[in-house]
Amino acid sequence: MSTNKGDRVRVERGEKSYEGVLLPSSDDDQLVVKLDDGYNVGVSRDGATVEVVEEAEEDESPDDVTLEGDDELPTVSLISTGGTIASTVDYRTGAVTAQFDAEDVLRAVPELAGRANYRGRVVSNILSENMTPERWQELARAVRDEIREGADGVVVMHGTDTMAYSASALAFMLDTPVPVVFVGSQRSADRPSSDNVVNAVCAVEAAKDDVAEVLVCMHSDRSDGKCALHRGTRVRKNHTSRRDAFETVGRHPLGTVDYETGEVEWRREGDERTDDNPALDESLNENVQHVKFVPGKDASVVDEDADGVVIEGTGLGHTHTDWIETVEEHDGVVVMASQCLEGRVCDRVYDTGRDLLEAGVVEAEDTLPETAYVKLIWALGSSEDADEARETMRRNLAGEITDCSRPWT
Amino acid sequence: MSTNKGDRVRVERGEKSYEGVLLPSSDDDQLVVKLDDGYNVGVSRDGATVEVVEEAEEDESPDDVTLEGDDELPTVSLISTGGTIASTVDYRTGAVTAQFDAEDVLRAVPELAGRANYRGRVVSNILSENMTPERWQELARAVRDEIREGADGVVVMHGTDTMAYSASALAFMLDTPVPVVFVGSQRSADRPSSDNVVNAVCAVEAAKDDVAEVLVCMHSDRSDGKCALHRGTRVRKNHTSRRDAFETVGRHPLGTVDYETGEVEWRREGDERTDDNPALDESLNENVQHVKFVPGKDASVVDEDADGVVIEGTGLGHTHTDWIETVEEHDGVVVMASQCLEGRVCDRVYDTGRDLLEAGVVEAEDTLPETAYVKLIWALGSSEDADEARETMRRNLAGEITDCSRPWT
Repeated sequence: MSTNKGDRVRVERGEKSYEGVLLPSSDDDQLVVKLDDGYNVGVSRDGATVEVVEEAEEDESPDDVTLEGDDELPTVSLISTGGTIASTVDYRTGAVTAQFDAEDVLRAVPELAGRANYRGRVVSNILSENMTPERWQELARAVRDEIREGADGVVVMHGTDTMAYSASALAFMLDTPVPVVFVGSQRSADRPSSDNVVNAVCAVEAAKDDVAEVLVCMHSDRSDGKCALHRGTRVRKNHTSRRDAFETVGRHPLGTVDYETGEVEWRREGDERTDDNPALDESLNENVQHVKFVPGKDASVVDEDADGVVIEGTGLGHTHTDWIETVEEHDGVVVMASQCLEGRVCDRVYDTGRDLLEAGVVEAEDTLPETAYVKLIWALGSSEDADEARETMRRNLAGEITDCSRPWT
Repeated sequence: MSTNKGDRVRVERGEKSYEGVLLPSSDDDQLVVKLDDGYNVGVSRDGATVEVVEEAEEDESPDDVTLEGDDELPTVSLISTGGTIASTVDYRTGAVTAQFDAEDVLRAVPELAGRANYRGRVVSNILSENMTPERWQELARAVRDEIREGADGVVVMHGTDTMAYSASALAFMLDTPVPVVFVGSQRSADRPSSDNVVNAVCAVEAAKDDVAEVLVCMHSDRSDGKCALHRGTRVRKNHTSRRDAFETVGRHPLGTVDYETGEVEWRREGDERTDDNPALDESLNENVQHVKFVPGKDASVVDEDADGVVIEGTGLGHTHTDWIETVEEHDGVVVMASQCLEGRVCDRVYDTGRDLLEAGVVEAEDTLPETAYVKLIWALGSSEDADEARETMRRNLAGEITDCSRPWT
């Protein structure tokens, strides 16, 4: 039986059965159904039976919509990757097929109207825990294309779970002349405490502003008054559920957006927007291992075939001394970050650290461990030479390594 | 050539040469030398030549010293495991052989005198990154013995890197009738900003107080005025170098100690000290894997032969959906914690979470991922039955799972 996105369907597979509205799926082997409680469920097509309960209304709008009109306004591209903020929008409009285009984002969040001319693009429709380096590449290309095609700023709607990883990835891959603002939602729109409207409005305001980097825009505190703007490489989801879950680790955020006035305030130094073309260096090397050292973890967990390894060490950047030989014998690039998250790796203070340095470890300085992992995937993609990748890891490229004397950077 | 601890020696091995004072080493294959800059260096005995530059003065004091005298004062046991705070003490006294006994702790930190009668015991002399589950057991037995032998409170001097792991381990293994207070030092005594005196004094004051649990005592802020008392299962080293690196994650600490007055203030509910005997359940199962999920990490990293696996998932407790089948097929106990650190795992909100629950995952609630790892090692030690261990993981045993309505617990 043929189905179309927007159809109300009943899907049965094995002993399970789901009824809801069929969503577009980026994975041909998966059916994605929006349940009546607002959440999405993915079902493998293999062995599933699908019955259409009610057909979707005809909808001719393509996935890629441009809403332009007011020449005085800048153009903001809304890119959707999925996650709560995207499913939210859909849930409020009830118009599933149009869930991802700019028109329906506007219908769902009328507060966006009049702030910009909008373009829309769907890159994926996934929960962000399913993000992969390959999807980072798709997303980076989409952002590049949107800027090339005239966007004065880009808003990326993304699930919050891995938003910081994706923002880091784009920060390394893309040299952007305009703001690229990641935004998500910790609570879906069917909840009174939803943060989707405030976050979306603030993200659009930030995307119009005079900066040129990758940012994350989320609630700055428990109130609805302001969003914080975090540098993509220095942010973490530090709380499972709070709306102000995102934090610039160990620093003030780069800026804030006032929801009522739309005013953006910065405490940053850095690039301003230009008319340059965006530059993309999208090569990645996925043969990078991430490993967190904990007491009792044996050095044999280190993957000797990996081209790169990021160790989340203890304290200033340590492991059990049994690991030192393994690091020394490793042919790849071994980078030391700290599970403390705040502060700076410094392997010159204690004996273990000095031995690790001598064994060839590269200090991540104050790069967050998650960012160091993403950076190494990129560094080993953009150069096959291990020493060159080591040099890349030591250099600040996108604000991931900060200078103590400039606390806002 | 025969050497004794306390001798000034020159050690040569390969192309390297060190001169300093020979320390007692817990590893017979290692020479540990305190360099003149205050740091220790470990050199394998194998292939090393040792020359005595100056012999140690005779010292007859045994490792286990009791300093009692004032019947009005409580007895506090000072247990040394190594780390900056222990090496510190040594560096100030210059009396290396006596580094670890109570008398020399007093000589190094005269501010401790008159606060208690002291006992002293050396358990190990290692950098804390070399702590292992086996050493947790040795330490737990030593603490148990000290309490049995009359200590009214125990202070454990420990390196800061893995102090939170060891404190968690003791909190699960030991049912203590008196305070067991871990203390360390972020800066050694040769630095003007050393925190060793303030931390040691506050730890002793806490050890005399009317509580019965495992605590961590470290600087509460950047000043020297106060130390914070953290619950052993809820604390993290959250900064690589600051003196107030330790934080009770997402909560206020349990209490504070004022350095000047020695006054202890609590914001806690819980057990008060008793005259009971300490109960030790020291069985551990080291066949537990810790794995942090990051985008691009394949499910094949999960060790199918492990008796237990702790996953540091994203957000509310998620992994890539490809991991679900691996979790489902795993015979051991799979526990989900969150890399967010703050907040609570809740796998009922999103599809991935529901599938993980159905696949048998145990939610760690708001247990910190590092604590969940230590707890699972203990839970699978104290019971070989997987279902029993799962039940243990779901129960709050030592404050590791908190009730939202009681933010101080």
